[in-house]
Amino acid sequence: MINVVGVKQEVPARRSWTKRRDAKAERLTGMKDIASGKVIPTGRIVEALESLIVPGDRVSLEGNNQKQASFLSAALNQVSPEQIYDLHMIMSSISRPEHLDIFEKGIAKKVDFAYAGPQSLRIAQMLEDGKVKMGEIHTYLELYSRLFVDLIPSVALVAADKADNEGNLYTGPNTEETPTLVEATAFRDGIVIAQVNELVDELPRVDIPGSWIDFVCVADKPYELEPLFTRDPRHITDLQILLGMMVIKGIYERHEVQSLNHGIGYNTAAIELLLPTYGEQLGLRGKICKHWASNPHPTLIPAIESGWVESIHCFGGEVGMEDYVRARPDVFFTGKDGSMRSNRTLSQLAGQYAVDLFLGSTLQMDQYGNSSTVTSGRLAGFGGAPNMGHDPRGRRHSTPAWLNMMTSDEPLARGRKLVVQVIETFQTGNTPVIVESLDAIDVGRNAELATTPVMIYGDDVTHVVTEEGIAYLYKTTNMEERREAVAAVAGVTPVGLQHDPKRTDQLRQKGIIAFPEDLGIRRTDAKRSLLAAKSVEELVEWSGGLYNPPAKFRSW
Amino acid sequence: MINVVGVKQEVPARRSWTKRRDAKAERLTGMKDIASGKVIPTGRIVEALESLIVPGDRVSLEGNNQKQASFLSAALNQVSPEQIYDLHMIMSSISRPEHLDIFEKGIAKKVDFAYAGPQSLRIAQMLEDGKVKMGEIHTYLELYSRLFVDLIPSVALVAADKADNEGNLYTGPNTEETPTLVEATAFRDGIVIAQVNELVDELPRVDIPGSWIDFVCVADKPYELEPLFTRDPRHITDLQILLGMMVIKGIYERHEVQSLNHGIGYNTAAIELLLPTYGEQLGLRGKICKHWASNPHPTLIPAIESGWVESIHCFGGEVGMEDYVRARPDVFFTGKDGSMRSNRTLSQLAGQYAVDLFLGSTLQMDQYGNSSTVTSGRLAGFGGAPNMGHDPRGRRHSTPAWLNMMTSDEPLARGRKLVVQVIETFQTGNTPVIVESLDAIDVGRNAELATTPVMIYGDDVTHVVTEEGIAYLYKTTNMEERREAVAAVAGVTPVGLQHDPKRTDQLRQKGIIAFPEDLGIRRTDAKRSLLAAKSVEELVEWSGGLYNPPAKFRSW
Repeated sequence: MINVVGVKQEVPARRSWTKRRDAKAERLTGMKDIASGKVIPTGRIVEALESLIVPGDRVSLEGNNQKQASFLSAALNQVSPEQIYDLHMIMSSISRPEHLDIFEKGIAKKVDFAYAGPQSLRIAQMLEDGKVKMGEIHTYLELYSRLFVDLIPSVALVAADKADNEGNLYTGPNTEETPTLVEATAFRDGIVIAQVNELVDELPRVDIPGSWIDFVCVADKPYELEPLFTRDPRHITDLQILLGMMVIKGIYERHEVQSLNHGIGYNTAAIELLLPTYGEQLGLRGKICKHWASNPHPTLIPAIESGWVESIHCFGGEVGMEDYVRARPDVFFTGKDGSMRSNRTLSQLAGQYAVDLFLGSTLQMDQYGNSSTVTSGRLAGFGGAPNMGHDPRGRRHSTPAWLNMMTSDEPLARGRKLVVQVIETFQTGNTPVIVESLDAIDVGRNAELATTPVMIYGDDVTHVVTEEGIAYLYKTTNMEERREAVAAVAGVTPVGLQHDPKRTDQLRQKGIIAFPEDLGIRRTDAKRSLLAAKSVEELVEWSGGLYNPPAKFRSW
Repeated sequence: MINVVGVKQEVPARRSWTKRRDAKAERLTGMKDIASGKVIPTGRIVEALESLIVPGDRVSLEGNNQKQASFLSAALNQVSPEQIYDLHMIMSSISRPEHLDIFEKGIAKKVDFAYAGPQSLRIAQMLEDGKVKMGEIHTYLELYSRLFVDLIPSVALVAADKADNEGNLYTGPNTEETPTLVEATAFRDGIVIAQVNELVDELPRVDIPGSWIDFVCVADKPYELEPLFTRDPRHITDLQILLGMMVIKGIYERHEVQSLNHGIGYNTAAIELLLPTYGEQLGLRGKICKHWASNPHPTLIPAIESGWVESIHCFGGEVGMEDYVRARPDVFFTGKDGSMRSNRTLSQLAGQYAVDLFLGSTLQMDQYGNSSTVTSGRLAGFGGAPNMGHDPRGRRHSTPAWLNMMTSDEPLARGRKLVVQVIETFQTGNTPVIVESLDAIDVGRNAELATTPVMIYGDDVTHVVTEEGIAYLYKTTNMEERREAVAAVAGVTPVGLQHDPKRTDQLRQKGIIAFPEDLGIRRTDAKRSLLAAKSVEELVEWSGGLYNPPAKFRSW
């Protein structure tokens, strides 16, 4: 130890620098009788987990919002809580009942997550009852990045389509977050266990190298996969078509939006299905919506077939779209075997930094444009929306749409990302969507979160679109004007009713508000007949029979 | 084609959906006589490039700021400009003369890049002379993300340590951006060519699967690798030690900064070398600076050895640190073969989203805290600084430091990332660093950039540290107060001289400014004797002989 002049220095005891590696080696010894090489027999998975996991471990369990390591989560739910307890779970999505059952049983104690859609009521209740210790709520991308900093896992439980005996993995179209979870764990002497649908001699392609994987186990049934991004055009309303027309004319055309991400919902499905019809009438093909960071939405099929789309990079796959994607390699990312390559981390990155626009919906928006899907009693998490729905201030390259957001000619002025919220002012059941103040404030307080769980902050929102019109929030110059602009399109919600019609006229004249008629759109033209496909059956027809919708979407 | 009621619809001609795949297959036919399987003989690389690349191609050429695909860039510089011309180059770093020579020869025409440090004067001149068509200047992360959206490459030229005959690659400690460049190209039917230092039968581990790689070629000499992150402690001045003490006491301790990224420079080297001495005196071990997203800086060795550092995830490797990193797997990410795993994309992501603080320096800062390394006649690009040096508004999780930046108790208030600029008010040669207005404005105008090339925007900066003191900019409430806070620590620069001393007193009382004495730091204590290592030789000693510095840093 170097002697530092004038400074008292404690000489640390000789320490080991291979504690993690040694701990792993020790855990692996118990596996000699259980696994054959890297392969764990299906029936011995619970035993294997009990051998490989120790109390207090940080366990990364793959639960994307689509692909679920469902065999491994079920197995984890069967380990002995006397042997394995107090786990710190990292799950991008809390989707399945056993994701929370393990907390009821004491197997797990603390959770860091990004999304809890299907379990949002139950987790809120469990938090209140003290059955779950909350880590933090993240977006996908920040959760992934913490896996390399201060949430490095001891164990990763992931899912793949196929493995070979060396542990090489084929994830096929549903690569999603698997490589990222594996990389964070494998390169810090953690233990990586992959469930696979089958074990084969030769893989169609290698998505994750075997030297990153410790064990594979053939699942009792294929991993669960949710068709989360499929919307049946049958349910798209005339109102949603009006919203879609306004978006195409008043935002995509006006700002020359060439690359984008669409959140999930009927509003975005409507826009996608209007491109080959209304968009074509406006002569916009080749000018807007060319590059996408999104899942392979079935409702994009007509736009793809009509030559609108140059490229789509996908977060994950979509059930039923496999053959269609395989037949359209000029549009989608595909591997040498012909099947799609997705990558949730890189697609979120693209959705953050590389696209002109994010467009999404919300359950609640306050009078300043702040929005949240966290409403009373529900802790839904954020998923990817806040990551894509903000102005990435680290961006330095420009595009026409980005530059179009500049409202100043100061020398240091810059463009910004377009963040569009499309909402109908009322939900079904007469609940106003635009409110004075977000429910999320109380939910956050009750769950003792450090900050209110806001999905998208109002100062990141550039446009709000309702059935009343478009508020061009990026043109507002202060909070009061922003509030007035939101109120002007808030309809007969309490926020809207307080608005002074004279102010609305002024805002229209300043170009801060546009009504459909200001955009040259007749409300009476907004009809379902404008949709390029009016049903799932018609989507199949557009695809030339290549799209193979899940049973629940088949009505013919 | 479905008939859409009421809408005229042009029926597109039957089109091919496999244009990219077909084009690739055609290019590959010419390789039958040149390559043996996936292996291109070293002497035939120019011929191979002429066979695989066509005019106008978008070519991604690996030039990280450290690892360079130098054999391939030299080969590209030798292709016939009559056969191959007008390439659109994508290079994260323009580092080598041939990176620009290819433009002089007409082989390439347009460039998208992130950093041009060593070639910054020449590229500015070539732009002015119309010899290069400028795409955009990016941060690394946004350039990578565009590879999946609107800058998808036709060809990728990358570098790895070793390959086997199936094209599997071992990148070892210098994985850097290689997997990202390859993924974007391989999964869009582009052509991936990797130069390798050697061809072996069995790889130590697989970093990139062979099914992603089309060709490998053994280079005539190992790829170039720059020891960019090595700073000799011998050159650290007393002034830099004072700055480092202020940072540790006035920022890291005060805000409880647990995870961070340090930019490159003597200021950051000083801080790293003060942790085991001054930081230890303050009792901060285990409380601050535990998790790092950074390169394996040799000046971090004493802090690591003293037990300060729990984890470091690295962008890339550092020449000479290989054995040391291999012996410290509890701190660094390492593979099964024992060598380090870096990943520039994931580390930039961690540096953006997962750490509390970014600390860097700049060549010029204006009176509002805007800064740029683009100064007169130099188009240096941005590298990674703007990505890490901004408040990532998509972040939703909290840490003590992040929450510590909250200045309001409004229900929707949030924390922010700490972005610290450490500067000496004058450069050598009496050039003021703090100026009224950035040179970058003129440079941007002359190069006809769409916006001024600002490195870090003032409204993202939370702290400015100079030899005068610390300006806590996050506490300022408007532009005028921010300007005054910058001026108060601007010393005898023109900006500093205009400042009213009475205002300084008020700002001190409000806690917006702190001088060393306010922090309990005596300027006379800031001595080189405080450094845990005062030379490269002492770093080697700290490392127990494991650090093996490059020849140019050996003075003993």
